[in-house]
Amino acid sequence: MLSKSLILVQNQDEGLPESTTFRIDINEVNIDNLKNSLLPNQLLVQLLVASADPYLRGQIKSTGSFKAGQVMQCFVAGKVLHSTHNDWIEGDLFGANLPVTSIQVISPQSTGMLWKLTSYLDEEHISQGVGVLGMPGSTAYAGIEGILRPNQNETIFISAASGAVGGLSGMIAKHKYNCKVIGSAGGEEKCALVTSAFKYDHCINYKNANNADELTAMLKEVAPEGIDMYFENVGGMHFEAAMRTLRVKGRVAVCGQIAEYNKKEITYTPVNIMGMIYTQQRIEGFLCFDWLVGKKGKFLEEMSGWLKEGLLHVQESHYEGLEKWPEAFHDLFTGKNLGKVVVHI
Amino acid sequence: MLSKSLILVQNQDEGLPESTTFRIDINEVNIDNLKNSLLPNQLLVQLLVASADPYLRGQIKSTGSFKAGQVMQCFVAGKVLHSTHNDWIEGDLFGANLPVTSIQVISPQSTGMLWKLTSYLDEEHISQGVGVLGMPGSTAYAGIEGILRPNQNETIFISAASGAVGGLSGMIAKHKYNCKVIGSAGGEEKCALVTSAFKYDHCINYKNANNADELTAMLKEVAPEGIDMYFENVGGMHFEAAMRTLRVKGRVAVCGQIAEYNKKEITYTPVNIMGMIYTQQRIEGFLCFDWLVGKKGKFLEEMSGWLKEGLLHVQESHYEGLEKWPEAFHDLFTGKNLGKVVVHI
Repeated sequence: MLSKSLILVQNQDEGLPESTTFRIDINEVNIDNLKNSLLPNQLLVQLLVASADPYLRGQIKSTGSFKAGQVMQCFVAGKVLHSTHNDWIEGDLFGANLPVTSIQVISPQSTGMLWKLTSYLDEEHISQGVGVLGMPGSTAYAGIEGILRPNQNETIFISAASGAVGGLSGMIAKHKYNCKVIGSAGGEEKCALVTSAFKYDHCINYKNANNADELTAMLKEVAPEGIDMYFENVGGMHFEAAMRTLRVKGRVAVCGQIAEYNKKEITYTPVNIMGMIYTQQRIEGFLCFDWLVGKKGKFLEEMSGWLKEGLLHVQESHYEGLEKWPEAFHDLFTGKNLGKVVVHI
Repeated sequence: MLSKSLILVQNQDEGLPESTTFRIDINEVNIDNLKNSLLPNQLLVQLLVASADPYLRGQIKSTGSFKAGQVMQCFVAGKVLHSTHNDWIEGDLFGANLPVTSIQVISPQSTGMLWKLTSYLDEEHISQGVGVLGMPGSTAYAGIEGILRPNQNETIFISAASGAVGGLSGMIAKHKYNCKVIGSAGGEEKCALVTSAFKYDHCINYKNANNADELTAMLKEVAPEGIDMYFENVGGMHFEAAMRTLRVKGRVAVCGQIAEYNKKEITYTPVNIMGMIYTQQRIEGFLCFDWLVGKKGKFLEEMSGWLKEGLLHVQESHYEGLEKWPEAFHDLFTGKNLGKVVVHI
């Protein structure tokens, strides 16, 4: 059987990710040999899908965690080919954060980042293991449930609303808390998706705003009373417009800042810290890990439940073949995709 | 009997508070007439002490809540001279946020900002009603218990450590959570008080730092592993130094920014928002009110308990006569005082 790996050829400090930054290595592996040589408590697994996520942009800079020549590590979903571990059997489906090598042996307890999907989806829907039931889903869940903690009927603003995290965040806020949900996205087509399929109340086409002042005016037009929460995925003028519109006891969940990722230098955003006192406002960064693996909250149970009830619209953009991963990753930063970007290995 | 009032003569937008900004009015009042004319559920009260607090600096700007000619409103403590309210009797001691008129009639349910001190202190210690058992005490308590929520043995940095709020915050963090407590104060005398009387582990004399880089270096010298929490009372280079030293899962409680209060323009502090994501850091502004009046936490019970156990060092600077209030207020911004500034009316 052929095993494919995604390799980082060289670090790239700025600009859009280039195709020469990555390559695919292909190796012949003998499955029977691998099965027979498993140590106790190990799994032989096959990755079926790999995720292309904006946060990886920082990791491939020379200051990031990946070095040239290394196998890229990212969120994946796959199935167990053979198991010597009590908790897993052949055919089990899982999500994980792993080096992108399609056939590999792992020790699940040593990764700490493996979650079982068998009871939540079938192989046909394995792409959801890197989407609604994977990192983006748990990020949306953590941001809403853990950080923003909405009260019923509050107003929330979500940037990158047509993206994997943004879309799901708004759906949770709408269905569970009946929030007034305002998104922003780049272009009329994306905005139409956000309001029609994701059921947002409003979506701002930020491409019509030249600066923070104009974006603030557009936001205030649909939220004249201000916003109670901001789910930050973009940075730059989005963050500024949100802070200027944030009400008393307002919360900001800082999930990502895609507008900043391709820059080499750190961006310092001017914040009126003193203005946060009387308003009792909060800005909080967060990661999804604890929620994803069930240390906090009930992500898989709740999210898969909402999915079955039809409350969540699954939006995915598919790329066929691991060879397409660099293209999929590049497209994240040009706004070409809708929803979750999934690469079928 | 004479009743004194503290009047705002004119708004002052910038600079140190001037003596011409305020005046004291004195009126003759007939206590017996006032007692006899009380409506149901009212109190005739005498204010005994008034607090001079930095936050008032913003209120006397033309953008603030006080208008020229108006009686200043601030935190006070006093006693009940006569009551027609079931919850109060003659001789009861209280803390409150009230217009500074020494003899006045109030309806306690309409103020919402009156708390009974009778069982926690006697008249001799009424100054504590605007200090450790008043707004500054509840602010320290809210910042530590409500916002920073220390784990045992964490490291906390507290600016304005010799001030009313800073001093108490450090004592709570030390006694209840065994934190490593690092303060900053202006001058060796203040630093000596902070370490000897308040039992801080370290105190940085920030006057030896010319900029955020130097203050950061001084902070890192005593906290080489970084800080877990920052109690913000100052702003400017203190905030920057704290953010640069803040560890993973670090929290910042924004209580005040005294370095900014005398400025007319809003200060925007550059913050690396993206850097808060992977570190899961939080910046949160807060007010003490809910804690002060018992809606959240058990401020009066816990704080008075620690006081009786001798765990809190009470540091107060006293001024005799309401006529001294403008001087006391001015001195807040020149760093002349240690601990809580109390004006005896």
